Amino acid sequence: MTQDLIRPVILSGGAGTRLWPMSRRARPKQLLSLAGPEAMITATVRRVVDKQLFAAPIIVCATDQGEAIGRLVADAGYSAGALLLESAGRNTAPAIALAAHWAVSHGDPLLLVMPSDHVIADVGAFRAAVRLAMAPAQAGRLVTFGITPDRAETGYGYIERGPPLGAGVFEAQRFVEKPDGATAQAYVNSGRFDWNAGIFLLRASVLLAAMAVHAPAIAEAVAAAWKGRSEPAGTMITPDPAAWARCPAQSIDYAVMETAKGVAVVPVAMGWSDVGSWDALADLARPDDAGVVAVGDVLAFDAANCLLRSDGPLVAAVGVRDLCIIATPDAVLIVPRGRAQEVRRVVEALAAAGRTDLL
Amino acid sequence: MTQDLIRPVILSGGAGTRLWPMSRRARPKQLLSLAGPEAMITATVRRVVDKQLFAAPIIVCATDQGEAIGRLVADAGYSAGALLLESAGRNTAPAIALAAHWAVSHGDPLLLVMPSDHVIADVGAFRAAVRLAMAPAQAGRLVTFGITPDRAETGYGYIERGPPLGAGVFEAQRFVEKPDGATAQAYVNSGRFDWNAGIFLLRASVLLAAMAVHAPAIAEAVAAAWKGRSEPAGTMITPDPAAWARCPAQSIDYAVMETAKGVAVVPVAMGWSDVGSWDALADLARPDDAGVVAVGDVLAFDAANCLLRSDGPLVAAVGVRDLCIIATPDAVLIVPRGRAQEVRRVVEALAAAGRTDLL
Repeated sequence: MTQDLIRPVILSGGAGTRLWPMSRRARPKQLLSLAGPEAMITATVRRVVDKQLFAAPIIVCATDQGEAIGRLVADAGYSAGALLLESAGRNTAPAIALAAHWAVSHGDPLLLVMPSDHVIADVGAFRAAVRLAMAPAQAGRLVTFGITPDRAETGYGYIERGPPLGAGVFEAQRFVEKPDGATAQAYVNSGRFDWNAGIFLLRASVLLAAMAVHAPAIAEAVAAAWKGRSEPAGTMITPDPAAWARCPAQSIDYAVMETAKGVAVVPVAMGWSDVGSWDALADLARPDDAGVVAVGDVLAFDAANCLLRSDGPLVAAVGVRDLCIIATPDAVLIVPRGRAQEVRRVVEALAAAGRTDLL
Repeated sequence: MTQDLIRPVILSGGAGTRLWPMSRRARPKQLLSLAGPEAMITATVRRVVDKQLFAAPIIVCATDQGEAIGRLVADAGYSAGALLLESAGRNTAPAIALAAHWAVSHGDPLLLVMPSDHVIADVGAFRAAVRLAMAPAQAGRLVTFGITPDRAETGYGYIERGPPLGAGVFEAQRFVEKPDGATAQAYVNSGRFDWNAGIFLLRASVLLAAMAVHAPAIAEAVAAAWKGRSEPAGTMITPDPAAWARCPAQSIDYAVMETAKGVAVVPVAMGWSDVGSWDALADLARPDDAGVVAVGDVLAFDAANCLLRSDGPLVAAVGVRDLCIIATPDAVLIVPRGRAQEVRRVVEALAAAGRTDLL
């Protein structure tokens, strides 16, 4: 009955610098324990541990992070079904196609595609949404999960719901890229739009067929890379680097979802966050009465509405308001709450100055 | 003619924590390069290098800092006349009395007593004031230097000027302790008050005589400690620890100046600062157009009116206003400009928590 289990596909290609100085090129966000005691990728794996519903996950990650990720997952007591190693980051469409190739040679299961670095507070709601998505996915639809928006966020793409297809499932009428503030507000007010969180349920062969139609260059390159794969001992598989290198780098949204017909959406409210900034992380935490979130070796006096976090030097804050202060052994970031996205200015300056030790 | 030279006495007993996290118990402010490229005590020594006017300085410091201070001074190309080592801090009156004992056995010169951790921007004005003070000091007066106040500072003691005694020299009518704000403002408005900076010119034997009258317990204990001194090779001298330990710990102001008769004051404006806080240090520096002072490995974007300083991790500040941010390898302080005195709350908390590694 293995073919009846859903095969999770965890995408770990992100090298996000939005949580600098804690996230670095060699230690991206999903490897960090940011929103709890365990690494985000470990929490992602744990979210799909249910032997009645899920097979062991496939993880797609950068070659040089395969060992670290395998160890993290193993240390948490879990095992990956396979680790697919990208010799270069090609965005999500090739990564998902690669996992689909693995899957069609393992019973062509439904794939539950998920980023490795998101928070989902309500795992029960998540699994209930997955169960709702199974029927349309088994019927050959590409199913996406739409996060019920709680604000007019301009940092995410949106999915417009069309006619209902069944209990809790709708036709996905339209994918839209990140809107401006007024448009985002109109979307939220309409009640017909959800956030595109990049989580999908789809059958491996259906995805590959859609990709052959809508993104033939990716389909061809990934097929060639898969054909030329190397599989040493263990669960690690490396697609042919030359073929992989010539694969276009595109998101699954752009390559397939925005143009494919018959895409479905399952709206779900599940305490989701992409943890895309220190502000987002601060919003996830439980602050004290003054609105202060303190993590690590931190002393605060008369502080209010701050995120104070250190895995390096003691952070001693007196009389500060509305700040994110993030300390590591070699770098400290101080930025007002609400402006944490501007960390990119620091990262860009460090890159321009060639300070790769800090990136 | 050696007896005609002034003998500087540099008091280095302070263990100030007001510039934490850079100043520490084992590395007090005067050993740090805070207001320029050299340690503050080195700048203090350099201020009295003038073979026409000054003999080599006597330095009074804690026993466990004698070697470091001797090395600092020697590395700068200077030499101390003597290093007098305090086995315990007893405040300024005993320290000055100790130096006076050394001096009476070396020709009984005028002593120019100075803290080791102050900034004097206008050394010419300082030396001119010293020259003005020589005549009354040679005539047997205790002469103090009064800093012309530029604000109603409540953190300093004040000296009220009495009748003039000669060009630029006045009777010191009254020493007053740190006043409240209204009193300080009245002092400044009156034009008759100067700040007490703890800088004195006096003949060694005169000081000892005044101390015998006004602070006999100190005079007796220091005389005994001096009598029982040990003088190994080199310039280091250690007064008898048992006698030293029983010496009352009092400031020279309290023990002598506030009660002695015939004290004189030489008012002087010389860009003086006691560098008593990060705010004071920020005021000394030349900020950029946005009011930002950046020292060390610091990146700032859209910052205004900030002191940003690191001798440890990179400090990256985006969009911050009106802050002092001070980073060392093991501790980072963040406090609003104008509230830097509150660093004591951090230091007290660390002491209470037994975190001596950070003190």
